[in-house]
Amino acid sequence: MDNRYHKIRAWQIKEGICEEIEDPITGENPLTVYFNGSELVTLLCTFEYPEELAVGFLFSEGFLKSGEDIKDIKVDPEQSGVWVNSHRTAQIAEQTFMKRYITTGCGRGTSFYHLTDAVSRPVETGFRISPDQVLNLMIQAQRMSELFRVTGGVHSSALCTVEKIMFFREDVGRHNSVDKLIGRCIMDGIDTGDKILLTTGRISSEILLKTAKMGVPVIASRSAPTDLALRHAEELGVTVAGFVRNRRMNIYTFPERIMK
Amino acid sequence: MDNRYHKIRAWQIKEGICEEIEDPITGENPLTVYFNGSELVTLLCTFEYPEELAVGFLFSEGFLKSGEDIKDIKVDPEQSGVWVNSHRTAQIAEQTFMKRYITTGCGRGTSFYHLTDAVSRPVETGFRISPDQVLNLMIQAQRMSELFRVTGGVHSSALCTVEKIMFFREDVGRHNSVDKLIGRCIMDGIDTGDKILLTTGRISSEILLKTAKMGVPVIASRSAPTDLALRHAEELGVTVAGFVRNRRMNIYTFPERIMK
Repeated sequence: MDNRYHKIRAWQIKEGICEEIEDPITGENPLTVYFNGSELVTLLCTFEYPEELAVGFLFSEGFLKSGEDIKDIKVDPEQSGVWVNSHRTAQIAEQTFMKRYITTGCGRGTSFYHLTDAVSRPVETGFRISPDQVLNLMIQAQRMSELFRVTGGVHSSALCTVEKIMFFREDVGRHNSVDKLIGRCIMDGIDTGDKILLTTGRISSEILLKTAKMGVPVIASRSAPTDLALRHAEELGVTVAGFVRNRRMNIYTFPERIMK
Repeated sequence: MDNRYHKIRAWQIKEGICEEIEDPITGENPLTVYFNGSELVTLLCTFEYPEELAVGFLFSEGFLKSGEDIKDIKVDPEQSGVWVNSHRTAQIAEQTFMKRYITTGCGRGTSFYHLTDAVSRPVETGFRISPDQVLNLMIQAQRMSELFRVTGGVHSSALCTVEKIMFFREDVGRHNSVDKLIGRCIMDGIDTGDKILLTTGRISSEILLKTAKMGVPVIASRSAPTDLALRHAEELGVTVAGFVRNRRMNIYTFPERIMK
């Protein structure tokens, strides 16, 4: 039994006929992240790869700069908690985190007034990928979306080389699936300059900032980008492809990485 | 010209052929909410109905209890700000808001440990709606989704009587489209006990809490609910219908409001 979802009794109405069914519903679980012993945040997520989610979140928020900052990680599924201990202190990151979330959007958005605070430098890489490779990766990712196929209730993201999917993550939270990939890269010290990030979710400004911070040169989505995400992408050197489906795509920024 | 989106140059690759196109992209705009003169939060949103969004957000977060708490509202599009002045002080709500966002998810989730803090009482109403009425309302809502049809980049929500859509709102933020409806109801003193809330987005625990707080007895979505949302719905007396599309739906809680 896959513990990422469970069957719940429901009543299906179809063509006017009502039938009692068992419907697989995705789990939305709290995961509390502790940094150097202090409770920092509780994320609502698919309880899978909790270390990755915690590390990815801490990197996105500036608490960690690299895998070397991590002293140890402990997960306690019963308490739904992840304890990350670091050589770094939380002080500066905590102030930024507090300020950002109180004044600029509570996870509904990020401060885009200070891009340089969020991302140290634009993504610069000679990485190239062909349109066919992008389309093939998207098809591979769709085939892997088992939890979505069963529940219809999750987003997925994947980190890929030009030819294959390295890591594939599903989560009830659009941001969480990306944070899990970031966490994996940080923990394994993976070079992201020659990778592409695929996602099922829309490319909002926040997702774009995560991509740039991670140093990934190309993001591709089945869905639409926002104008603010595209402005960030221009500034931060990220190639954005949207509506990647049915053998087509739209490329919005730095098309030279995908086109010949 | 609709200022909710604008055309951006893009490169479309289709069947191996690359063509320069102009693609309509949805706007993602900052809106800063000031409460009694103090800056509270910056939301990233579709800049439309800013008063509703501000009031809905303030109600969802406990800063306002009803329309009578509002002294005046001022919108300044140039500064992208909404100033809401109230007879209520921010003190207690601000503490809860800070605590909630710092310890429980930064908009990625809400504290579900204290449901009674969030929602004063379960939704109790003799409201009834037939399956056909729900399906018809969903079809009406789809027809109204103009911004989605153009950009593919927004979610929409609608507040309806059993027969027709009263208010329809689109936004880049899934939560914002619901908050705009809440704001409208608060400002106009609309009775929500005999209404249904439709949304294109998934029904997460946070969306369910907003529905219950608003006092709406039925929420219906084209997408899936999460298990936590369904647990909240059981406790708070809300009927949840998911996968409402193609002449069918699944009802998960309090089916007696929809079934005969």
